[in-house]
Amino acid sequence: MNVLIVHAHNEPQSFTRALCDQACETLAGQGHAVQVSDLYAMNWNPVASAADFAERADPDYLVYALEQRESVKRQSLAADIQAELDKLLWADLLILNFPIYWFSVPAILKGWFDRVLVSGVCYGGKRFYDQGGLAGKKALVSLTLGGRQHMFGEGAIHGPLEDMLRPILRGTLAYVGMQVLEPFVAWHVPYISEEARGNFLRAYRARLENLEQDVPLRFPRLEQFDALLQPLAR
Amino acid sequence: MNVLIVHAHNEPQSFTRALCDQACETLAGQGHAVQVSDLYAMNWNPVASAADFAERADPDYLVYALEQRESVKRQSLAADIQAELDKLLWADLLILNFPIYWFSVPAILKGWFDRVLVSGVCYGGKRFYDQGGLAGKKALVSLTLGGRQHMFGEGAIHGPLEDMLRPILRGTLAYVGMQVLEPFVAWHVPYISEEARGNFLRAYRARLENLEQDVPLRFPRLEQFDALLQPLAR
Repeated sequence: MNVLIVHAHNEPQSFTRALCDQACETLAGQGHAVQVSDLYAMNWNPVASAADFAERADPDYLVYALEQRESVKRQSLAADIQAELDKLLWADLLILNFPIYWFSVPAILKGWFDRVLVSGVCYGGKRFYDQGGLAGKKALVSLTLGGRQHMFGEGAIHGPLEDMLRPILRGTLAYVGMQVLEPFVAWHVPYISEEARGNFLRAYRARLENLEQDVPLRFPRLEQFDALLQPLAR
Repeated sequence: MNVLIVHAHNEPQSFTRALCDQACETLAGQGHAVQVSDLYAMNWNPVASAADFAERADPDYLVYALEQRESVKRQSLAADIQAELDKLLWADLLILNFPIYWFSVPAILKGWFDRVLVSGVCYGGKRFYDQGGLAGKKALVSLTLGGRQHMFGEGAIHGPLEDMLRPILRGTLAYVGMQVLEPFVAWHVPYISEEARGNFLRAYRARLENLEQDVPLRFPRLEQFDALLQPLAR
């Protein structure tokens, strides 16, 4: 497999970085090819703006997704976006590796979604969910957070973690057609012992070594909806 | 009331901008004081990083929230963050005005959450949800999106919009203690007529004129949980 890890943490010695390193070691050890996009180290620009387009289909009014599609046709995507898109298209497995900020990804990673998941390649028209442009690829979210496990779930103070992650798992990764695996979660990370951190790293290694056996999460399929995307009667 | 509108769109002539202008006009017309943070026009930096701290409590290892708390104590927050935090603390009503990107906010706005919702002021320890640092303020999300209304809801292709917005409504705005009002949504915006746009603007004006009557959405209250934040028996 080709594996792209997109890593977003502002401390190079963080435990989140240790998870990234663990994934590199484990997956390379299994013979997979691994590339890492370390967004902070790359000084990644997360802001989707007019500056992304040297040429414009409509110079007077910016519709970002339209200009993405036109840039794809003209092969004139900005160099930093094209480089990330090339890695993504190369990959069979995408791993997003980040600490939770506001029940979501850090802005630097949100801007990787906004700029790299290009309309006309990753989705467009009725190419989304199982028909998305990245169908056939797998995606794994590996995250760290400060909260404890008992704070998440039905009836828990923050509700189910999968519900908080819905815009990422369903609205982004499943939307572009990827098979989304169950997230790997390291809980309470700022407060735990070295031993507990070691346990998370070992659990992550075991998970990665057996990723083939993972059953992807289930999301809508377009065949369940009519031409207007209304639910078909069952 | 003091009103802060945080606006995030990369096209100055956008319909999303027209919603921002409508809110300014309507609320100022009612005698409220209104400030606008136009994140693209301000060239807002959305990346939470070590560069935010001129002095560090721990120069060797960055824990972003810890450095936020220490900077608050030393009154040494970065100038761009302090300016936004001052506006937020001044405001009785916060309006977030943006187009949906990947079922969430654009990265430039996500980074406003990451950097401005400072630990030690907006939340910290057990000061969250109804005990959050911004308790007493109201928040309204005003958003535009490409999808049609029938694509959202129970059984619809993308499920309920409120579920997609959960990290924003519950995980961010309610988390810091704000009373979160039902979002204002303009559907299918890139594809609709001038007349339909005018209808949305009029509906928005009417909504804003009667905002006092809005019943906030309901979220957890800490009194429902024990000292470990486990649910209390009922």
